[in-house]
Amino acid sequence: MTPRTGTDRDRIQSIERGFAVLLAFNDEHPNPTLAELASVTGLSRPAVRRILLTLQGLGYVEGGSGRWRLTPRVLSIGQHYAASNALIEVAQPHLLRLAEQTHESASLAALDDTEVVYIARVPVRRIMSINVAVGTRVPAYATSMGRVMLAWAPPEQVERVINTSDMRACTPKTVIDPTRFRAVLRTVRDQGWALVAEELEEGLISASAPVRDQSGAVIAALASSTSTGRSNADRVEAEVVPLLLRTAEQISADLGHRTAASPPIIQGRDGFF
Amino acid sequence: MTPRTGTDRDRIQSIERGFAVLLAFNDEHPNPTLAELASVTGLSRPAVRRILLTLQGLGYVEGGSGRWRLTPRVLSIGQHYAASNALIEVAQPHLLRLAEQTHESASLAALDDTEVVYIARVPVRRIMSINVAVGTRVPAYATSMGRVMLAWAPPEQVERVINTSDMRACTPKTVIDPTRFRAVLRTVRDQGWALVAEELEEGLISASAPVRDQSGAVIAALASSTSTGRSNADRVEAEVVPLLLRTAEQISADLGHRTAASPPIIQGRDGFF
Repeated sequence: MTPRTGTDRDRIQSIERGFAVLLAFNDEHPNPTLAELASVTGLSRPAVRRILLTLQGLGYVEGGSGRWRLTPRVLSIGQHYAASNALIEVAQPHLLRLAEQTHESASLAALDDTEVVYIARVPVRRIMSINVAVGTRVPAYATSMGRVMLAWAPPEQVERVINTSDMRACTPKTVIDPTRFRAVLRTVRDQGWALVAEELEEGLISASAPVRDQSGAVIAALASSTSTGRSNADRVEAEVVPLLLRTAEQISADLGHRTAASPPIIQGRDGFF
Repeated sequence: MTPRTGTDRDRIQSIERGFAVLLAFNDEHPNPTLAELASVTGLSRPAVRRILLTLQGLGYVEGGSGRWRLTPRVLSIGQHYAASNALIEVAQPHLLRLAEQTHESASLAALDDTEVVYIARVPVRRIMSINVAVGTRVPAYATSMGRVMLAWAPPEQVERVINTSDMRACTPKTVIDPTRFRAVLRTVRDQGWALVAEELEEGLISASAPVRDQSGAVIAALASSTSTGRSNADRVEAEVVPLLLRTAEQISADLGHRTAASPPIIQGRDGFF
């Protein structure tokens, strides 16, 4: 997916180290000291110090009383992805409507290597709400979103995901056998959607449909998630999957994709204008 | 706000250049060529090429047929801010409830230099929806969110914003005179909330209330926005501001802030558990 065309000699080590320090801030180390950052990244303290001063000059970190933290300017980096990606803007009203229709959170996800990244999301208030933010990553093999994207991917990409994911059983129901997994992807492709019940997490059910660009390539997965406490796989298939398929087709149509089933008329925007 | 403690000698130029290339991808240049990136950043083509190969190695950009694009992995950088910031997780259910109560989008924003950054947002479907994503930046002086944060900021920070913002009139109603602006901030501080009608954009009304951490410091602004087509300033003040104040107090209480008006009991979570 991201073949390395340059040699190692072409890459700039200090940029790699800069990101290593930036990514070392997380829920385990929200306010690390210089020593903690050196320990997590494996870099020397003087190296970490210069990187922190550089990141501070750029406005991405702030220091005080020996501890450092990320600033909200870090969010602006991701905003460049959203701004340079027409899909997210196009999908937003459709996600909102899907969330209203299903009374469940609606998400859009893209494939990044062996994982799925949430690129847009409309949350819904719930007693047990499925709490994931944009940018969250989950393994592709155990999610309906990942399976939708892999179902239409080239076989070599599927094999790469099988070979480089750890393919561990997140729950007793997770499909981890490669032969069974390939069969699951064929079923997804034949039926046109994916449903995964309790393979990523106990109690979690999600369904996904493919979003296509003008060329017909599957570029994202539209998903709706619920819990076994509120619904079940049969109900999701009967009630949510048809809405998902229609919404995914409408997003695809807005992106310029045309099918026999969706003639090129302005549609799917009823009530917006 | 972010004083530079190191000298320029301490900063690493290639990290600065790496971010310059990453941020050159935007809605104007979603799929730039190497030549376009060199032109936008002012760097040489060989320098941009090495930076692109480094960013590709890190998984942040992808190239093909002479054009480059950001990958969704860029979103994961911002996710580190969210994961290291308890405020966002704490605020999410409160934002959802506020959006339900007001039937308007609810936002949380932080101050970054002279601008306000949306750090969390619950959108609501609308005929004319106010379309801003997490990470979006707007000038602090012309927004209710910025004014709430500046109203309780140290005077030197207010002066810095006045002196370094361009303070242009976004609309004919924008307060740009420094003396009047300081008076507006005093009013916000006295009344405990801010309301800005059509100063950032014609037709846009927003109200904000301060969110405080355990120490009582104002660390974010909670905001609700509407349009002149749906409401007006008097109605927002009468109907939305009380909800905003209560919700901001609940978020602050969840962060450990205690006031005489909000005794330390578990509150504001009714209906969640």
